Amino acid sequence: MSHDLVIANGTVATASDTFRADIGIRDGRIAQIGGDMGQAGRVIDATGRYVLPGGIDSHVHIAQPSGPGIEMADDFDSATRSAAFGGNTMVMPFCLQERGQSLTAAFRDYLALCENSAHVDLGFHLIVTDPTPVVLGQELPSLIEQGHTSVKVFMTYEALRMDDAGILSTMDVARRHGAKVLVHCENEDVIAFLARRADEAGNRDPRAHATTRPVAAEREATHRALTLAEVVDVPIVIVHVSNGAAMEEIARARMRGVNITAETCPQYLMLEAQDLSRENWEGAKYVCSPPPRDRTEQENCWRGLENGLFDLFSSDHCPFRYASDRGKRNPDGLRSFRHIPNGIPGVETRLPILFSEGVMKGRIDLQRFVALTATNHARAYGLYPRKGTIAIGSDADIAIWNPETRRTIRHADLHDGADYTPYEGMEVQGWPETLILRGRPVIESGRMTAKAQGTVIHRRPGGAGL
Amino acid sequence: MSHDLVIANGTVATASDTFRADIGIRDGRIAQIGGDMGQAGRVIDATGRYVLPGGIDSHVHIAQPSGPGIEMADDFDSATRSAAFGGNTMVMPFCLQERGQSLTAAFRDYLALCENSAHVDLGFHLIVTDPTPVVLGQELPSLIEQGHTSVKVFMTYEALRMDDAGILSTMDVARRHGAKVLVHCENEDVIAFLARRADEAGNRDPRAHATTRPVAAEREATHRALTLAEVVDVPIVIVHVSNGAAMEEIARARMRGVNITAETCPQYLMLEAQDLSRENWEGAKYVCSPPPRDRTEQENCWRGLENGLFDLFSSDHCPFRYASDRGKRNPDGLRSFRHIPNGIPGVETRLPILFSEGVMKGRIDLQRFVALTATNHARAYGLYPRKGTIAIGSDADIAIWNPETRRTIRHADLHDGADYTPYEGMEVQGWPETLILRGRPVIESGRMTAKAQGTVIHRRPGGAGL
Amino acid sequence: MSHDLVIANGTVATASDTFRADIGIRDGRIAQIGGDMGQAGRVIDATGRYVLPGGIDSHVHIAQPSGPGIEMADDFDSATRSAAFGGNTMVMPFCLQERGQSLTAAFRDYLALCENSAHVDLGFHLIVTDPTPVVLGQELPSLIEQGHTSVKVFMTYEALRMDDAGILSTMDVARRHGAKVLVHCENEDVIAFLARRADEAGNRDPRAHATTRPVAAEREATHRALTLAEVVDVPIVIVHVSNGAAMEEIARARMRGVNITAETCPQYLMLEAQDLSRENWEGAKYVCSPPPRDRTEQENCWRGLENGLFDLFSSDHCPFRYASDRGKRNPDGLRSFRHIPNGIPGVETRLPILFSEGVMKGRIDLQRFVALTATNHARAYGLYPRKGTIAIGSDADIAIWNPETRRTIRHADLHDGADYTPYEGMEVQGWPETLILRGRPVIESGRMTAKAQGTVIHRRPGGAGL
Amino acid sequence: MSHDLVIANGTVATASDTFRADIGIRDGRIAQIGGDMGQAGRVIDATGRYVLPGGIDSHVHIAQPSGPGIEMADDFDSATRSAAFGGNTMVMPFCLQERGQSLTAAFRDYLALCENSAHVDLGFHLIVTDPTPVVLGQELPSLIEQGHTSVKVFMTYEALRMDDAGILSTMDVARRHGAKVLVHCENEDVIAFLARRADEAGNRDPRAHATTRPVAAEREATHRALTLAEVVDVPIVIVHVSNGAAMEEIARARMRGVNITAETCPQYLMLEAQDLSRENWEGAKYVCSPPPRDRTEQENCWRGLENGLFDLFSSDHCPFRYASDRGKRNPDGLRSFRHIPNGIPGVETRLPILFSEGVMKGRIDLQRFVALTATNHARAYGLYPRKGTIAIGSDADIAIWNPETRRTIRHADLHDGADYTPYEGMEVQGWPETLILRGRPVIESGRMTAKAQGTVIHRRPGGAGL
Repeated sequence: MSHDLVIANGTVATASDTFRADIGIRDGRIAQIGGDMGQAGRVIDATGRYVLPGGIDSHVHIAQPSGPGIEMADDFDSATRSAAFGGNTMVMPFCLQERGQSLTAAFRDYLALCENSAHVDLGFHLIVTDPTPVVLGQELPSLIEQGHTSVKVFMTYEALRMDDAGILSTMDVARRHGAKVLVHCENEDVIAFLARRADEAGNRDPRAHATTRPVAAEREATHRALTLAEVVDVPIVIVHVSNGAAMEEIARARMRGVNITAETCPQYLMLEAQDLSRENWEGAKYVCSPPPRDRTEQENCWRGLENGLFDLFSSDHCPFRYASDRGKRNPDGLRSFRHIPNGIPGVETRLPILFSEGVMKGRIDLQRFVALTATNHARAYGLYPRKGTIAIGSDADIAIWNPETRRTIRHADLHDGADYTPYEGMEVQGWPETLILRGRPVIESGRMTAKAQGTVIHRRPGGAGL
Repeated sequence: MSHDLVIANGTVATASDTFRADIGIRDGRIAQIGGDMGQAGRVIDATGRYVLPGGIDSHVHIAQPSGPGIEMADDFDSATRSAAFGGNTMVMPFCLQERGQSLTAAFRDYLALCENSAHVDLGFHLIVTDPTPVVLGQELPSLIEQGHTSVKVFMTYEALRMDDAGILSTMDVARRHGAKVLVHCENEDVIAFLARRADEAGNRDPRAHATTRPVAAEREATHRALTLAEVVDVPIVIVHVSNGAAMEEIARARMRGVNITAETCPQYLMLEAQDLSRENWEGAKYVCSPPPRDRTEQENCWRGLENGLFDLFSSDHCPFRYASDRGKRNPDGLRSFRHIPNGIPGVETRLPILFSEGVMKGRIDLQRFVALTATNHARAYGLYPRKGTIAIGSDADIAIWNPETRRTIRHADLHDGADYTPYEGMEVQGWPETLILRGRPVIESGRMTAKAQGTVIHRRPGGAGL
Repeated sequence: MSHDLVIANGTVATASDTFRADIGIRDGRIAQIGGDMGQAGRVIDATGRYVLPGGIDSHVHIAQPSGPGIEMADDFDSATRSAAFGGNTMVMPFCLQERGQSLTAAFRDYLALCENSAHVDLGFHLIVTDPTPVVLGQELPSLIEQGHTSVKVFMTYEALRMDDAGILSTMDVARRHGAKVLVHCENEDVIAFLARRADEAGNRDPRAHATTRPVAAEREATHRALTLAEVVDVPIVIVHVSNGAAMEEIARARMRGVNITAETCPQYLMLEAQDLSRENWEGAKYVCSPPPRDRTEQENCWRGLENGLFDLFSSDHCPFRYASDRGKRNPDGLRSFRHIPNGIPGVETRLPILFSEGVMKGRIDLQRFVALTATNHARAYGLYPRKGTIAIGSDADIAIWNPETRRTIRHADLHDGADYTPYEGMEVQGWPETLILRGRPVIESGRMTAKAQGTVIHRRPGGAGL
Repeated sequence: MSHDLVIANGTVATASDTFRADIGIRDGRIAQIGGDMGQAGRVIDATGRYVLPGGIDSHVHIAQPSGPGIEMADDFDSATRSAAFGGNTMVMPFCLQERGQSLTAAFRDYLALCENSAHVDLGFHLIVTDPTPVVLGQELPSLIEQGHTSVKVFMTYEALRMDDAGILSTMDVARRHGAKVLVHCENEDVIAFLARRADEAGNRDPRAHATTRPVAAEREATHRALTLAEVVDVPIVIVHVSNGAAMEEIARARMRGVNITAETCPQYLMLEAQDLSRENWEGAKYVCSPPPRDRTEQENCWRGLENGLFDLFSSDHCPFRYASDRGKRNPDGLRSFRHIPNGIPGVETRLPILFSEGVMKGRIDLQRFVALTATNHARAYGLYPRKGTIAIGSDADIAIWNPETRRTIRHADLHDGADYTPYEGMEVQGWPETLILRGRPVIESGRMTAKAQGTVIHRRPGGAGL
């Protein structure tokens, strides 16, 4: 057998195994592991390196409409370039149906946006905000049938939220057609109530973003979403969990038999609510929802990564520029936390942060790193076994990591469209050097070496979960 | 490259992956996965078969002293033969230090017993019952250093139990030398209290075994063992969990940060307390500890297997003959549940039961089956990466399963030394056809084709858990 | 001192004490306990009797609009007559603001309805369904200031429910003006979803009422309501709790510091979901919300009464006639559980059921009976110390019970306006013989001896809870 | 009717009621409440005062042997004098059976010690440390029959602890004869393990007392004790609970149906572990078991007092002199936390602290104060209705409080035999001015006006709990 590409002498890791072996790739797929590789079109030497499945970041926001006058900092080109440099071979952004809009039309628009511009593969989650009979009866089933098998609903954000009836109907369609439902769990009414009160009290600082989105609002919505999924009997993904109380709801619901995939993100390990108090409106750089909490909750989130409560570690990349959008003033010249767009950039730093803080510091092993950042994403979203692993027949989506590289995170070195990173100055050990997408090197020696070749992956419906 | 043995055309599964590939074996190890195999000493065709890591049953009792006049039904020959026919390439029996005995001497005795008679590989857990300064200060550290890195303590059985002080001291030695501690969690004093009361009330039936070992006794001891491990900060294995209340203790302790490996067994999925009520002393066939519970608890245990609460699925094989030992009468001609030796056979049926009821019925997937029955055992007990997986460089311990085989479990067809199986008459789908130990076929076409070649595996201390 | 009335020789009980003493009453109030009574206008001999505070039933529905073509079976005359015969000296019905209606106007209407027709004292809870600025900004504060210090909101019933925003606003008004908020906790969207599904599946039987209102719907709404109260920091009453899961939410929230009053009702002790399966549409007699559950949940509710989790035992009297309203057919001749009005009669049987099943059977003592049926209601709703106890200066509202009386409950003997009782045929021991309202005998020897003299009690705002 | 004593014009409170009334006392008992008092031998004017049931402190240690060379600071004279000045009319000390000793003989000794020297009434809990057949079969049943209906067992202190078997046997005797079992819940083996480790590490400071008795040790023992009581089905008292984790165990066990009385103490509201770090061995003044925790746990304990989780508020008065005993050096001149006798004085300050911090600061009302400090003790221990309340026929045990008195706690003003108070310098509002024992004034105007007249109260067996 001859191979198009051989990755030689590396230490390979999957979600269950770590071993020394050469990897042979043919026609974009893993063809051979170990043994005599025979002829190779090209050999990449990975001595002293980790050969890992390319990261899958199943929670990134790209080019979504974000309110009047506000523009998301990334288009598909910049977001996926940033993802690639961060060791990812696939990201899963969202197709957002705005109210009144056709879901099918929205999907068509996103396809157009990403065409020929994605540097990694893509899968779209479908955000339903307006569960009309046409959407639920025709458009959503049709898109699921076409392989877009995950639906997202919001319990917060005035423009996006659905009430429980809408969520139940959407879940029911998902159940019948074999899709999973992602839920952003925060109680919008609680937040609006507290935000109005903060406003009236003159608390307009970014810090108020955290105090008006308390753990109680997340815990409540988490319990509610889990109950709705329990009633409908549909697999659910609880995204971006930030604290131990929400984690406890997940653990309790699992014991009731609910099929749950649970996700947390770097911001809940590395940031704190008090970051939002930084002076001179700098706190605005840390505004995301749910907000970062405190040390105790960071520790809780780490525990969930270690002990299996969490299945997914995603970025929830959602970039807005600080200079233009995050510090926006009202026509009257005032600024308020209520006008800061929610979300922070992170698609490029997700993997290095977990690798450095988790693997290098001994909190998780390499296999768990792979599971949390690639394999479980593939399994949760019907991409497996094509994506998310290094196994015979799987796509040769591979990141080669140098565990010795030490870097200081600086936005100047990143590739997203934002103008800052919340992790500026953080020291990390370990960085992906080489990225291979379906057998073709995309990044080598810190340079992008191929043009955009990412494609939208159609997925299997009916995935039973992890 | 040439291979000693190639397994061709099968569907291979690991704890994370399922894929079609040939497996090349050289020098007893996995040398190549997929690709062109070149020359092969022998080829086994596995078309339509599952090629899985050989089962590791990390909880079996062999040839232990079991009280006056009672003999365990298996020696190492019969037990490991039975294990092999049940798809296992390794079992982990116990070296039991009796009180007053040297642990080193006990270990030497067990080594003698298994020499040249084991059909699969072995690893010994060290049962400490008498934590003398010599045992804790010299013998146990020395044995751990030699690679016997798991210690077991009992909270029940008058002859075996240790008090909390003994457990703490033993845990402390384990922690310092990098061993794990397995705990049998039932409160002996509670059981003795209830047993005496049952006795006084004339309840001597096997059924009283279940009523005198209530869930409360297991929940209590589980919470206590977890607290002791929390105080010492040592990794703990909670073996043979039978119910949801004990599971809840495990979940709560994990959220407190305790490093826990949790195990359940076939008897807690398939048997019930009411089996102990069968007439004509037949109930004695189901006496094990903790006792089987009821349907609700079976369902709880299934959930724990599905949702990751449990890491290990073991047999707790502990065979006694019904004819001679389980129905024993006192000198006065009376029989009492108090004299029935505790434990049931199961090393051969463990894997087929979980395969049939779990994989075939869609409750768990093949990867989870592999994790629960092989990989997690290897990882929990420091055998990984040598054992428990199909990866380059790992021992070629492989079971080839035919998922189409339908069998009715009958003791007449099994190979252990007992005279019954508690699963008599149960229909299962899927059975291991071929077993390969370190590259050499041991069982083919339902026949053992090699002489005993099992060896005691020395393990790495300091394994950080799964 | 001379007394208008002396109750002599009885065994007196309060929420904390049981003792033998004469009670002297002057000017409608308790003037003396024990000692030499001096002159008495009248003496009632209570030898062998219990002299208890008159029952307060803080959860009864009277003369509320109940949907097109359906009439509540009781007006204030019949409901309070029934209450009096059941040992109550006060009931707390609801003033229901229908959507679009002025709360003040609604209140005026209810005052007119009860004028001169109430046989016991009254206090109104204000049901807000339409939280307009006028209602929240003017009407509700004004009514609270006037002494109507409890507000009720519904999370179920299409015509009554408020969304979380409405509940939060209402709670905020309650907090600022010192009122308590009662919440009916069931998730309407879940129920509507399941009811639609049942309907589509052709399940139209009364039994479907229970299956479409599962424990999960109640648990979810309970957690949510408690979270809203936690966010607003207002005292909350969780009414008619039916199961252990909702009880667990209450216990957890108390440990978070939420100020909670918890209530259960006779139907959750004595009825079961399977009563709704009775043949020939008889199941319709047991339709109430939440529905009765099963034996395990009955036992859970008993535990909550015994161990202090529940503060209040109320009837949730809500009577509809079986003949005319409960079996109603659609224009097309079909009947569906969806058209059965929700609620069952019970104001007259509440106290005898708890007395017989609780006190006589030794589950609770007499003091706890008094607390659960009178004192805690007075304390929860700002009536204390005027109402709910036998103490110097309190209203002489007294029920004299004969603990030896044995009766079979038959609707023919009751005094409400319904045409059945769900407890038909139940044997009870203990019945109130004599009722005294503000010093005046109302019922003696099984006959009503006074004309309607009940009055609406104005309450203190700012009651801090029990 | 004529009265020996009338308390006029005060505000009277019981566990359920607060009202203005005169109290008439005859023959040492409450004879009349309210109304015309007729002739009175003496009238005490209580204008502006609270007239409360005398405090019952059901957890005090007096004149117990405390280890070689250590003497408890109080005999019955000084302890009960101190109790009386602190507003108590009854205390419940312990009769400690030392190992090898007859329980009957021990009881006789305690009776001799208290004869003619107690200033308040007494009830003895029987501490069993050596459950011999004679003790369990004869002595304990006989003492219970004589009215000493509470037994205490220890899970800690090497000299006192019993193993689970001993506790079960003792509980079983208690159950059969109608006694309650108090349990000191800390795991001795855990503590000994940590203390040895601290010792080896040279940590000998008082602070090590707190770190070697962690919450985990208390939580574990609490769960275990509750399980033992669940198995035996006996009412249990969990004494001196110090933290939220132990409280959670209590709440969970109540939902399983265990009959639990729960107690906390002033030290868990007012002191912290860091008090044990005070310099110059001053930390030794705060050594008690369980140790004080931190602010969060203080808040948890307050919540338990407010929400009903706790039934009893006791002092656990256990005085040792600082000068002589708390700072003792070994023969080698070293001091270690291991030699500090466990326990702090507090019988005189218990009520003023709760009154000031609880009632005056609005955390609990007067009725809850009475319940927590008097009535619930009487009910829990079979003293009710004779003790613990102000009701017709009850002993006239009364404390008259001036809610306006402001005092700074200084040991110089207290009356116990210790040489310090841990609350030195604390400001309180409210102090008991007058104490009446069985109708006779004992303390008036800050002076003791009667000689010792306390007597041992014989109690009813079979008390069903609160």
